[in-house]
Amino acid sequence: MRNQYEQQLHRVLSELVDMTGCVREALNHATRALLEADASAAELVISGDLSIDDARTRIEEESYEILARQAPVAGDLRTLLASLRMVADLERMGDLSVHIAKVARLRYPIRAVPEVMVPTVKSMAETADEMIASAAEILATQDIRAAALLEEADDAMDDLRRSMFRILLSDEWGWGVEPAVDVALLGRYYERIGDHAVSMGRRIIFLVTGQHPVTV
Amino acid sequence: MRNQYEQQLHRVLSELVDMTGCVREALNHATRALLEADASAAELVISGDLSIDDARTRIEEESYEILARQAPVAGDLRTLLASLRMVADLERMGDLSVHIAKVARLRYPIRAVPEVMVPTVKSMAETADEMIASAAEILATQDIRAAALLEEADDAMDDLRRSMFRILLSDEWGWGVEPAVDVALLGRYYERIGDHAVSMGRRIIFLVTGQHPVTV
Repeated sequence: MRNQYEQQLHRVLSELVDMTGCVREALNHATRALLEADASAAELVISGDLSIDDARTRIEEESYEILARQAPVAGDLRTLLASLRMVADLERMGDLSVHIAKVARLRYPIRAVPEVMVPTVKSMAETADEMIASAAEILATQDIRAAALLEEADDAMDDLRRSMFRILLSDEWGWGVEPAVDVALLGRYYERIGDHAVSMGRRIIFLVTGQHPVTV
Repeated sequence: MRNQYEQQLHRVLSELVDMTGCVREALNHATRALLEADASAAELVISGDLSIDDARTRIEEESYEILARQAPVAGDLRTLLASLRMVADLERMGDLSVHIAKVARLRYPIRAVPEVMVPTVKSMAETADEMIASAAEILATQDIRAAALLEEADDAMDDLRRSMFRILLSDEWGWGVEPAVDVALLGRYYERIGDHAVSMGRRIIFLVTGQHPVTV
């Protein structure tokens, strides 16, 4: 019985790692849709979100079953509760990728991001992608050294958001209100994806070390 | 023992209702800060967020204690898991109120929202406030009739968001890029607060009826 229980718990964690991979793929398709005005990539993200939602439901139900049948305590209980949080983070990152894809679709065949802003948005997308990858690594290996990378990437994301606003409000910006609003919201979506990756990383660090790095 | 357990469970739910009240107050101060360029209201929201975070930590730890010591099953287990989700929703609504207050503070003594947009932002704020109130009512009374109001308010919020974009992109808009970006982000914050209220309402409906109205 104990053995089956450990298998179940292990399965939940490995499904979370798989889900992280799906979310990372969704984000990368969304970024391609956005920066290359690729409508089919946008559709892929929008229609693919259902499978991310399904993964969430499945992992939640499995966690619920373990809680109801096995009544885990201490570390296992904390792990399951953290998994429920992380699955919500991942589902939300999927939704944010859909928002990015929808901006791309709305402006197609025009690229929603004006030339002057492409390098900044590209860097934000790469940073968000790295952050998901770090969260997945911490999740899979429980090696909390990757956590330092996650915090560095989070600082880089803040810098990019600031430089995005500098460009939007400078004389360089000759594209008017509509692309400015698009870009500001896109920046927010990438930033929030990064925030969710940071939350995931911090939850695992808390599980491994028992110490909250900072409020998650 | 059983009696003490029921008291604990009851306390968690009543603390959630109290927390909903605090979040509603934070949002209303943030809206005043924004629409009346009231810097002291903004500071109140920003410094007050710590107590919302503390409430979250307290409710989480109490829920964890009940799960670890009492190993609840069936309805009580679902109630506790839903409470953990709702406390995360509420904390996030507090953060979003802080974002609104920070926009007000950043532009002080100028009002961040240009005259032409005030009615729309005011309606969004009122709608978000009603949505939190409905979520609190469903939580306190488990009377799911209030859920219909929540869904209506959610539709109204969508309409307001659309009308906000119409104004931003029309010839009426003579305020340029910076206020447009502020307003677009503010609209997003109010909308997200409403989304979290809807999630809370749907979770309680699921607890009461066993049926998911739609994916939360």
